[in-house]
Amino acid sequence: MKKYSLFLFFIAAVLPLYAQRVEPAFWWVGMKEPRLQLLIHQNNIGTTEPQVTYAGVKLTKVTRVKSPNYLFLDLTIAATAKAGSFPITFKKDGKTVASYSYELKNREPNSANRQGFTSADAMYLVTPDRFANANPANDNVEGMVDKVDRAGKDKRHGGDIQGIIEQLDYIQKLGFSALWICPLQENNQNMGSYHGYAMTDLYKVDARFGSNEEYRKLSKEAQKRGIKLVIDLVPNHCGSEHWWMKDLPTDDWVNFQGNPKITHHARESIQDPHASEYDKELHASGWFVPSMPDLNQRNPLMANYLIQNTIWWIEYADLHGIRVDTYPYSDKDFMSRWSQRIMREYPRFSMVGEEWSVNPSIVAFWQKGNKNTNGYVSEMSSMFDFPLQNALTEALNEDDRIYNRGLVKIYQTLSQDFLYASPNDLVIMPDNHDMSRFYTQIHENFDLWKMGISFLLTTRGTPQIYYGTEVLMTNPKSDSHDEIRGEMPGGWADHTVSAFTEKGLTPQQLEAKQFMTKMLQWRKTNAVVQTGKLKHFTARDGLYVYFRYNDAQKVMVVMNKNKEPLKLDLGKYSELLKGASTAKNVLTGETNSLANGLTVNASSALVLEIK
Amino acid sequence: MKKYSLFLFFIAAVLPLYAQRVEPAFWWVGMKEPRLQLLIHQNNIGTTEPQVTYAGVKLTKVTRVKSPNYLFLDLTIAATAKAGSFPITFKKDGKTVASYSYELKNREPNSANRQGFTSADAMYLVTPDRFANANPANDNVEGMVDKVDRAGKDKRHGGDIQGIIEQLDYIQKLGFSALWICPLQENNQNMGSYHGYAMTDLYKVDARFGSNEEYRKLSKEAQKRGIKLVIDLVPNHCGSEHWWMKDLPTDDWVNFQGNPKITHHARESIQDPHASEYDKELHASGWFVPSMPDLNQRNPLMANYLIQNTIWWIEYADLHGIRVDTYPYSDKDFMSRWSQRIMREYPRFSMVGEEWSVNPSIVAFWQKGNKNTNGYVSEMSSMFDFPLQNALTEALNEDDRIYNRGLVKIYQTLSQDFLYASPNDLVIMPDNHDMSRFYTQIHENFDLWKMGISFLLTTRGTPQIYYGTEVLMTNPKSDSHDEIRGEMPGGWADHTVSAFTEKGLTPQQLEAKQFMTKMLQWRKTNAVVQTGKLKHFTARDGLYVYFRYNDAQKVMVVMNKNKEPLKLDLGKYSELLKGASTAKNVLTGETNSLANGLTVNASSALVLEIK
Repeated sequence: MKKYSLFLFFIAAVLPLYAQRVEPAFWWVGMKEPRLQLLIHQNNIGTTEPQVTYAGVKLTKVTRVKSPNYLFLDLTIAATAKAGSFPITFKKDGKTVASYSYELKNREPNSANRQGFTSADAMYLVTPDRFANANPANDNVEGMVDKVDRAGKDKRHGGDIQGIIEQLDYIQKLGFSALWICPLQENNQNMGSYHGYAMTDLYKVDARFGSNEEYRKLSKEAQKRGIKLVIDLVPNHCGSEHWWMKDLPTDDWVNFQGNPKITHHARESIQDPHASEYDKELHASGWFVPSMPDLNQRNPLMANYLIQNTIWWIEYADLHGIRVDTYPYSDKDFMSRWSQRIMREYPRFSMVGEEWSVNPSIVAFWQKGNKNTNGYVSEMSSMFDFPLQNALTEALNEDDRIYNRGLVKIYQTLSQDFLYASPNDLVIMPDNHDMSRFYTQIHENFDLWKMGISFLLTTRGTPQIYYGTEVLMTNPKSDSHDEIRGEMPGGWADHTVSAFTEKGLTPQQLEAKQFMTKMLQWRKTNAVVQTGKLKHFTARDGLYVYFRYNDAQKVMVVMNKNKEPLKLDLGKYSELLKGASTAKNVLTGETNSLANGLTVNASSALVLEIK
Repeated sequence: MKKYSLFLFFIAAVLPLYAQRVEPAFWWVGMKEPRLQLLIHQNNIGTTEPQVTYAGVKLTKVTRVKSPNYLFLDLTIAATAKAGSFPITFKKDGKTVASYSYELKNREPNSANRQGFTSADAMYLVTPDRFANANPANDNVEGMVDKVDRAGKDKRHGGDIQGIIEQLDYIQKLGFSALWICPLQENNQNMGSYHGYAMTDLYKVDARFGSNEEYRKLSKEAQKRGIKLVIDLVPNHCGSEHWWMKDLPTDDWVNFQGNPKITHHARESIQDPHASEYDKELHASGWFVPSMPDLNQRNPLMANYLIQNTIWWIEYADLHGIRVDTYPYSDKDFMSRWSQRIMREYPRFSMVGEEWSVNPSIVAFWQKGNKNTNGYVSEMSSMFDFPLQNALTEALNEDDRIYNRGLVKIYQTLSQDFLYASPNDLVIMPDNHDMSRFYTQIHENFDLWKMGISFLLTTRGTPQIYYGTEVLMTNPKSDSHDEIRGEMPGGWADHTVSAFTEKGLTPQQLEAKQFMTKMLQWRKTNAVVQTGKLKHFTARDGLYVYFRYNDAQKVMVVMNKNKEPLKLDLGKYSELLKGASTAKNVLTGETNSLANGLTVNASSALVLEIK
């Protein structure tokens, strides 16, 4: 290794502009895909001749681009290649002017066979800057502009990876078995960097959250507790302060390069058989905001970069799932190849995409297995069920006495499941980090909250809950992102209330937490609510009844939005209650004979194990 | 023939209860389907032994049912059978106790190959009781209870077939090439019989409209004028005074027989993979109203009856299309067989079904060629585009400055065309006989009316216009069916205003009629607006632009809802305007160079031929 250091010294003297950057910095032997494309960034590296000598590794192609400071090296790694390090040398006029010691690691055993999240899981969502600040030492980091300012709008609060690690027991005890954390990758932007969606380095954890190694530790600690880690990826765009923005490799590295246009969000243009090229291009190539350059995934170098970056994180941090940001804003043909490539490498993996449309036919288009009329193939196992999120809050808030209002919204939305290839693989949620808190959406009505949570944890799909929902977090003043993503009570040393220790929680918050824990723990051990079939009955007059069932179990859920208790006509449900004699209330543990009929309290949901 | 009459006299004396009824009363040789099932209704006919002797005709099966007054005879008609009459005799104890002279006719030449309506047509819709009363002599008919009372609510007004025949020239001159008339079949109900949807005899034109022969004449006269006749069929239900309701053949002739339940309109239950049997059954088997018994199409005798009744009308009255009432309320498996059977007999025929849902995924389910996930196969060439109807009035009425409101509704709805197997085969309309008049829906705004009509006559699909829309008919007082279906001005002798002669029309009515005529006549001769591809641009800020195009022609439509004229940035449309130099205004005939740009007036639509 010593001799490389010598070269590096030499280079640093001659080529002061850019430090050497090789991405991905290392790789693995034994991947299904033998090809690997390295991006090398260094002053004038494009003018050199690279060389690789290592058993089983061939340099098959060298791509030079407009900027002289880049080289793209295509390596082919034979199945026989062994783990180890080897030099990549860069020569000019016969002399080695730069070098890099490249490492190929061994994969973790069973890596390719890792099991993603499924409907058997429940997923907790955390905005890391706002969840728990365990390490105030990394609140501010030299060279990173956006500083902690807990009183400021859209400012950093100091939450970090260590904070999450310390609360893994808490998350486990609530009953969650998957954890989606909003992006931890570096966002060295001048402002608003806390949210994580304007990445400035796709291979590096933001130092204010911790390090790559800490992230890896979080993953291992989560696994010990039966929690699958889900990374948040943003293939559509990067931050305007991304390192490559100062020295773009090609003229088409980002869309509308040099002359940004803002997307007009014509998401329909993707499925629309009548869409103009104008709309398709502006939708997918337009930038979200001026501070987020839109990556041109039609450039094959960019495409490779993004695919490898994804695989690198899965393999490096031992991940079990991906949440993909702004899915339909990326180039759809690229996303098809991207998803297929990931699933080829990890056939049991899970990925969930964000398509914020309340139209099931648009969301369904993106899910794996959907037979799209335009032939589009996606391998996304899951999409977020925004239509059901929307239906749920409308169902709870609306007056059921009005035609087509209230609980019937849930019925109508679930009835559209014929549009999905696999509705039970959708991720369902009462809210997320981009919209008003569920408890705010339903006007802080605790009865409705319990009904909503009961529904989410018993209908089809993988439930996802945003941190703090268990203690009724709200955003009463506004629906600004900053307020929605409030500090988790107990996450900061100066908090007087803690969701974690339960110190200072109101009786209602305590009840909410216990309620959710009870339901989640019960869900965890009941296959029927994870994978059972769903059968439901038209919602009418504030009453909605459905069943989850399989050969061994039956669960009946009754939602009553009326201000009075309701005695049910059980004959209506005979196709499912035939032969059943008792109903055990999941929350109270009470068992009653069905012979006495069934009464559901006012404004409440009954969840019953039927036997 | 004489000896049969003798028998009939004999029977009449012995069996006074029911007159002899044979349905279908006659049939044809040379049909693709060789089987024919006759329903015989006559007192105690079920106790007799039927016999048939005719070359090429075999009596293959006799079905007796619970009521002794029915017999169902399965005949098989060989391809070699010749047209002619033959006796069907009914024997008891060796003696002939009844007889019927059955006729097999020759088909019209090319009957099987008749061409249905297509997107090249424009369809006029008439409520026959309210369109034109040419024959006051048939206003009231002895033995039919519901009498003409033009001032009464939901009463008959006296319109008739002769009235329509006399206005075929009018309809043709407007530019229509298809004519859908609400049911003319007998509705001998005690009240509300004018609308036609409670049939009491499925084989007979209501005597207050005319006769079967007059209907046939109407068809022939329409064809002379290039107008295709579309019959309105109601396989889902009949009227409570239908003749068979007094003597039902079986215990399952109608659904919920003897104990009617009313449908709860859970239309979603048909596609819903989670639907309960309870909802599926109540939706499809429940009655619309107590006066409309729901026919049990799962009974194979009923199924045959309905299929043959359809074919009989097509063949007898030489029809070119069918409009099917309340499509998703019938048994869906029957409707699948029904539609397949019709299309096998008439491969180029057209049928349009009513599924009043504003959700394209639900409407699309029923259209021919749709790959339904539950395997359901339909042969309906067309469905009414209720989603687009809804979108159109919302688009015109809503404020375009609000997010996702206004013209964008049209864009979003048409973008869902990927859900349809053949969107251009849908029937599109601004309104129909069941909803407020279009001009009322858009608050009698004439600018919006012209924009809406311009849109309907230039976007994809077969446009359908309800009678009187051309003279701005409204229902200002209420949206009661009775008011919506007002008398056509000029249809009654005492009218002082006539749409037909234009006497008494306001200048605006006259302009509307001329506008529609101009547009329809132009549409008639321009293949590009009939079958051309559609390409559109996201609607924003009250502006919506789209093109119809094929290899030979290009039409550009610009809708501007703003209160100011708009000068267009033509560069945005270069993918279609490339190489084009002039634009001819279809309404004014004016041609302008595109080099000068394009300005569209405030609150108006421009329809331009681009060259």
